[in-house]
Amino acid sequence: MGEYQHITVKTDEPTARITMNRPNRRNSLTYDHLAELLAAFTEVAETSATGIVLAGEGPVFSAGHDFGDVAARDLAQLRDLLQLCTRLMRTIQSVPQVVLARVHGLATAAGCQLVASCDLAVAAESAGFALPGGKGGWFCHTPAVPVARAVGRKRLMEMALTGDPIDAATALDWGLVNRVVPDTELDAAIDQLLSKATRGSRVSKALGKQTLYAQLDRPEDDAYGIALEVMAGAAQLDGAKEGMAAFMEKRQPVWPD
Amino acid sequence: MGEYQHITVKTDEPTARITMNRPNRRNSLTYDHLAELLAAFTEVAETSATGIVLAGEGPVFSAGHDFGDVAARDLAQLRDLLQLCTRLMRTIQSVPQVVLARVHGLATAAGCQLVASCDLAVAAESAGFALPGGKGGWFCHTPAVPVARAVGRKRLMEMALTGDPIDAATALDWGLVNRVVPDTELDAAIDQLLSKATRGSRVSKALGKQTLYAQLDRPEDDAYGIALEVMAGAAQLDGAKEGMAAFMEKRQPVWPD
Amino acid sequence: MGEYQHITVKTDEPTARITMNRPNRRNSLTYDHLAELLAAFTEVAETSATGIVLAGEGPVFSAGHDFGDVAARDLAQLRDLLQLCTRLMRTIQSVPQVVLARVHGLATAAGCQLVASCDLAVAAESAGFALPGGKGGWFCHTPAVPVARAVGRKRLMEMALTGDPIDAATALDWGLVNRVVPDTELDAAIDQLLSKATRGSRVSKALGKQTLYAQLDRPEDDAYGIALEVMAGAAQLDGAKEGMAAFMEKRQPVWPD
Repeated sequence: MGEYQHITVKTDEPTARITMNRPNRRNSLTYDHLAELLAAFTEVAETSATGIVLAGEGPVFSAGHDFGDVAARDLAQLRDLLQLCTRLMRTIQSVPQVVLARVHGLATAAGCQLVASCDLAVAAESAGFALPGGKGGWFCHTPAVPVARAVGRKRLMEMALTGDPIDAATALDWGLVNRVVPDTELDAAIDQLLSKATRGSRVSKALGKQTLYAQLDRPEDDAYGIALEVMAGAAQLDGAKEGMAAFMEKRQPVWPD
Repeated sequence: MGEYQHITVKTDEPTARITMNRPNRRNSLTYDHLAELLAAFTEVAETSATGIVLAGEGPVFSAGHDFGDVAARDLAQLRDLLQLCTRLMRTIQSVPQVVLARVHGLATAAGCQLVASCDLAVAAESAGFALPGGKGGWFCHTPAVPVARAVGRKRLMEMALTGDPIDAATALDWGLVNRVVPDTELDAAIDQLLSKATRGSRVSKALGKQTLYAQLDRPEDDAYGIALEVMAGAAQLDGAKEGMAAFMEKRQPVWPD
Repeated sequence: MGEYQHITVKTDEPTARITMNRPNRRNSLTYDHLAELLAAFTEVAETSATGIVLAGEGPVFSAGHDFGDVAARDLAQLRDLLQLCTRLMRTIQSVPQVVLARVHGLATAAGCQLVASCDLAVAAESAGFALPGGKGGWFCHTPAVPVARAVGRKRLMEMALTGDPIDAATALDWGLVNRVVPDTELDAAIDQLLSKATRGSRVSKALGKQTLYAQLDRPEDDAYGIALEVMAGAAQLDGAKEGMAAFMEKRQPVWPD
């Protein structure tokens, strides 16, 4: 693994752990912090890890962009920052691993965007989620992109326009997270969900995850056009052949990848 | 009605009943089974039935594709199978009748896709729903297309990546089914919902259903472009004119179709 | 404000109140009524109001189109009516103010479409929501456009095909409204939510709201393409600069607009 200043990266195979480690800055996402996260996801993508847990050190998950970093930028520099941020979000969705957000404390603005962009999310009861830009003078335009795709439209409008946080139970009810557990049970719940979500052939699962994101938010005919071609090809993979053979022979499969 | 080996088709007007009848194969969807289902929907579409109940005989609703059938296929043959399967799903949405899935026991993979593709679904408390491909070596790429459009994104990811079943109450909470009732009340609940859903002018309802599918999953301007033209034209139909006349004259309408 | 016959318009800054005022016609939406609503939203858009409450006088919120007005129209005239109606719905989403529907009693057909088209909605416990066209001879083709984008697909199908109303609690559960409160607390709940939703810079909030609607219902890459450019530009606004400066200087912001 590379050298990082703002994050820690552990690769206890089969799960890699990428942890934002600027607790005194509430894990705010400066350009350098985002660049390290992008580098870490890119690096872990090349390993044989099957899952990645994205976490934050300290009292909150992440407070989003760092206003000190934002305020100093002109239009071109700000576009650079947001393009880097967007690349990180899309990379989380394109890496072959299952990515799970471990959320405790507040996840706000681009921090909430991180949660929405991970494949899965498990929250402690103490967690909160907000798009606070609407309370002030900027606005959570890009964080709202994946949040809108997880919760309904009226709920998005409420979060984006009021800027107020929703609690963990509401986030579960609205579909922003998959599980809410007492804070002391957070890591156990994550291990359990991740072990289930990473079962099976690694190659097939990676293709599966990537294809899900490709087909979402499109008219159904277009979505089928994508999913059908992938599924026909995927059946030719060694993992698929082994899975079907094991099922028919009533034995445990041995995944080739 | 045609001769069928894998399914039974009853046309007790006004409701047709298409039942998967391979209980010893858990109603798995071989090429021939899918072809019969497609033929049956196509045939019933031409009748004056106003509703179709899709059900499964035996302990489960449907286990999805038959691995014996899949494993023997090369890429071109598998594409044929999946194209047939997709044609069935889209036909369920384009027939003029209201199609309701009667779900008891497990509905897995393409079986779960059938539930998601029907206009409405009523489940027994015993029902379960899964995209199990993610547990193994293939992946439920195409079943995830309509399931994604019924439940939220994080919930789709959980179903597709873990492969674990959700129970009937969860399916109701997530919007995958419209009703959950005790197993003994399943048929009564279906008759009740279907009688409400098939009221009114048959021609107007068919156009309504087809237009809903056409406008979904599109930017709102595009959706309005479709729905507005249909709605202007639909008001010229005999059924629409009769409905408005009856309303204004405070009498029961007599539907012309 | 202009002279209106079918509605009342009050501009108690900072909140404007547009009220459908044809109680004896159940606030049905004739061409002239729609035209006045469109004119009122267009007029209020130019004021410094930060929020708009859309309400209905009398026993219901709105019964939708007026069949007397619809039945007399030929195809071209009906297209005119529906284009006007659609322009109203899109205008509600494009005005710079936060628009909140105040729903008591029934909101049916285009009345339900109004609720779905407002940014936020607060309902009294007495409220009900229906797409009744499916019960009869026309069909709620265009009302289903925004309702589909607020509730899930199976729930849309149930509303559109049965035509039966859902109650306020169900509307909250499905995401069609943001709050449900006892009828006597309706106005207090609206004031509270609206005061939160209209905080901050007026210009930034308007841009935020308009960008949300622009990015919804699109593939995520396209949505990011829109939101990223807006967000980079928005940071250059006086309101954004003031918000960030106040945050960093730990003082209350003074919004320049």
